[in-house]
Amino acid sequence: MTIFEMAREHAVIGSAEAVIGWDQETYLPPAATQFRATQLSWLAARAHELATSDAWRRALEDAEAAAPGHDLKLCANLREMRRTFERATKLPVDLVARESAASSLAKHAWAEARKRAEFATFAPHLQVLLEIAREKAERWGYPNEPYDALLDGYERNTSTAAVAALFESLRPELRRLAACAVAVSAAHAPSLPAGPYPLAAQQRLNAQIAAAIGFDFHAGRIDTTTHPFCTTLGPRDVRLTTRYDESDFTSSLFGVLHEAGHGLYEQGLPCDDYGLPSGSPVSLGIHESQSRLWENHVGRSRAFWNHWYPVAQQHFPQLAGFPMENFLRFLWRAEFSPIRVEADEATYDLHILLRFDIERQMLDGSLAVADIPTAWNEAFRELFGFTPEDDRRGCLQDIHWAMGGLGYFATYSLGNLNAAQLHAAARQDPHLAAACEQANYAPLLAWLRTSVHAHGATLDPADLITHATGTPPSPAAYLAHLQARYL
Amino acid sequence: MTIFEMAREHAVIGSAEAVIGWDQETYLPPAATQFRATQLSWLAARAHELATSDAWRRALEDAEAAAPGHDLKLCANLREMRRTFERATKLPVDLVARESAASSLAKHAWAEARKRAEFATFAPHLQVLLEIAREKAERWGYPNEPYDALLDGYERNTSTAAVAALFESLRPELRRLAACAVAVSAAHAPSLPAGPYPLAAQQRLNAQIAAAIGFDFHAGRIDTTTHPFCTTLGPRDVRLTTRYDESDFTSSLFGVLHEAGHGLYEQGLPCDDYGLPSGSPVSLGIHESQSRLWENHVGRSRAFWNHWYPVAQQHFPQLAGFPMENFLRFLWRAEFSPIRVEADEATYDLHILLRFDIERQMLDGSLAVADIPTAWNEAFRELFGFTPEDDRRGCLQDIHWAMGGLGYFATYSLGNLNAAQLHAAARQDPHLAAACEQANYAPLLAWLRTSVHAHGATLDPADLITHATGTPPSPAAYLAHLQARYL
Repeated sequence: MTIFEMAREHAVIGSAEAVIGWDQETYLPPAATQFRATQLSWLAARAHELATSDAWRRALEDAEAAAPGHDLKLCANLREMRRTFERATKLPVDLVARESAASSLAKHAWAEARKRAEFATFAPHLQVLLEIAREKAERWGYPNEPYDALLDGYERNTSTAAVAALFESLRPELRRLAACAVAVSAAHAPSLPAGPYPLAAQQRLNAQIAAAIGFDFHAGRIDTTTHPFCTTLGPRDVRLTTRYDESDFTSSLFGVLHEAGHGLYEQGLPCDDYGLPSGSPVSLGIHESQSRLWENHVGRSRAFWNHWYPVAQQHFPQLAGFPMENFLRFLWRAEFSPIRVEADEATYDLHILLRFDIERQMLDGSLAVADIPTAWNEAFRELFGFTPEDDRRGCLQDIHWAMGGLGYFATYSLGNLNAAQLHAAARQDPHLAAACEQANYAPLLAWLRTSVHAHGATLDPADLITHATGTPPSPAAYLAHLQARYL
Repeated sequence: MTIFEMAREHAVIGSAEAVIGWDQETYLPPAATQFRATQLSWLAARAHELATSDAWRRALEDAEAAAPGHDLKLCANLREMRRTFERATKLPVDLVARESAASSLAKHAWAEARKRAEFATFAPHLQVLLEIAREKAERWGYPNEPYDALLDGYERNTSTAAVAALFESLRPELRRLAACAVAVSAAHAPSLPAGPYPLAAQQRLNAQIAAAIGFDFHAGRIDTTTHPFCTTLGPRDVRLTTRYDESDFTSSLFGVLHEAGHGLYEQGLPCDDYGLPSGSPVSLGIHESQSRLWENHVGRSRAFWNHWYPVAQQHFPQLAGFPMENFLRFLWRAEFSPIRVEADEATYDLHILLRFDIERQMLDGSLAVADIPTAWNEAFRELFGFTPEDDRRGCLQDIHWAMGGLGYFATYSLGNLNAAQLHAAARQDPHLAAACEQANYAPLLAWLRTSVHAHGATLDPADLITHATGTPPSPAAYLAHLQARYL
């Protein structure tokens, strides 16, 4: 088998995991949970075995030796497969197993700790996972600090220092903006007319909108879960989920817009290269840019609702007497909330800045696990002006650390920055911008297909942004967007 | 690894196939069909590799050498694993691959042939599959005729001659009964009050009834498909499906009762033995007995509807003025239809007798593929009194042959016979019978759990029936049931 055939086989195994994981979140009967873990770990072991095997190494070497230098896509694919192989084989099997076991225990402990708002229950597990993360960083190696090695797994060839510089340049303006937005919003914050917004009507509207922005229901679907997500079960099989609140139809709708943004990226990847880097998403920060672009730049725009608000009014009669201006102000409301996943555009990144700083200190050893709650609360008060009521609403709110996902949070803000930069660049085409003003997003999607999706993972994230927009990643477009929205 | 650990690993692979297969029938986006086949065939290849490996053979031999003769369950497990291993390894890999490819082509050709009512389109494919079936039979070996070898895969240690004798003893009485039932039904056949019977109300009633007969929704669920089925995705994960007709709520309900019967068997198998013969269903004829028992003996009984008809009337207001006697006559209607899957209890087995005769002649070479339509139509006229309008409603109606499933049909009638014999034996307990008269089926389910489910595949089907009922398989109880219902 060639390395490309092996890579496709690896993708087939991963896709079987994805089907089973999707079912686990959507339709699994409660008593079946435990066995599901057995199915997933069998598949994960086969995938790992294959991708770290001698056969894989030899096939990769053969392909590298035979590759003509002028075939850029081939070279990019081999370079990325080499990178993935090196990362995978640098970790001994027992370390992977230790992490998987520790994370499984940590998730339970975290859930319990969060319920009781008691950090001490989670702390020893976090300590173990932190040590494992440090060990992984040491084995992978890094140019400046351990965080580099972890970030590289989510956002390849991105240095922690560069992210920190980007974030620091954002911080003062973000704080000023957030304070303004929250004050304005508090002064006139209309609430949505009372529900119920029936579930079936929400589903119809969401499907109409998802199809209108280009989500292909022949190659995807929408189901219901506690936490919205998007997962790909095969080259033409993208599954979105959302959750429903009958008192607020925008909750499920923005869930769908966000996940459909991820889904459009997945549906736009080159199908024939499924399983190869050139047919895969490049990074979390680019993935998140696609979801944020459709959720916030498209979905929260006035032009979008000029078209869709009358449709929503047909679905939900109680909107009849509710002026669109009020609805937009409802969508653009801002407040200082302790919870990241409930945060609005004006305050979201402050949550990320806080986590990035804390994770970086955890990894370089300057912050002990026991001191996290205090550090969190102090940083939070500094940014938000108040202290979370308890650790449940503070450092225990996110599952990421319990899953061993240190170094992940930064990619959310990178996604916001990328989304704004891509959207602004796309709209420099006056025809495309005019179409957007008519809520016709076909030209925008076509631009994203060409400028982002078609590249798969052949370009580094920063190069992809530079290539697509003409400038290196910068916070300018994002700040301009927030200023336009909130000031 | 011991052979038991390997068997469990084999079951894990099979369960992953089951999840992916279930998703394919329930929620798969249309464009994703092709890749799904890739996922399934990768898993099937891993399962086959494992179960025919040298490691498996050695582990089985080790276990056989070490097994103490007094451990009856262990001995039964090893005996059945040996049987399965021998059957699997007697077929060369290329034969399995040829069958899979031929059946894949045949399914397309069959669908096309059925659409056009043109047997000639399907005939060459059926010829290939028949030759493969004969080759398999030769490789497996058989005591009397090739059909034995195929039947053994569905209904182990059951001879074709014994089935033929059973069927021949049924034939005259079945024909007399069917003729009477159809005549009586034609004289007074009430139709159900007009729909719509809303889908949501059907789903509520079906779930209520499935739970009431003991289906555990913590370890299972009901979804919607074109053709109802039951599949097991893991030791506590049984999925039923049904289809909905808003003009007739009994269509989805009897789909659920039938599949829930299969599901109760699966949920009743010893969980700790998942993947071993002692934790597996024994045969199609026993599986079908469980579905038929709940569908026909329970679900079409007067006692059942004494309890449930008032509930159905609450769900469907149009039943208010429709007397229960009329409803029962509607349920008990009988007619001569050309289509097996639409057949009622009174005529169903005639369809099976016809198929059994034809398959047996195909396999022993006395009926050429080209002559099947004529043979079918003649046998059909002889049994039903008329000739099907075309081959679509004749020999092209079932998918089984196109899937390579020769020797399968007989198990449907064995299921009917077994259901009646088990139900009659259970009701010899006066307390259990009295509970059934009150539509309390907990004692009946408990009896089935002990007498059938708990044995898994440790007893041969005929021995299981003898053990559970005190008499060897016989048509007596089934005929008595049909006579009581229709005469």
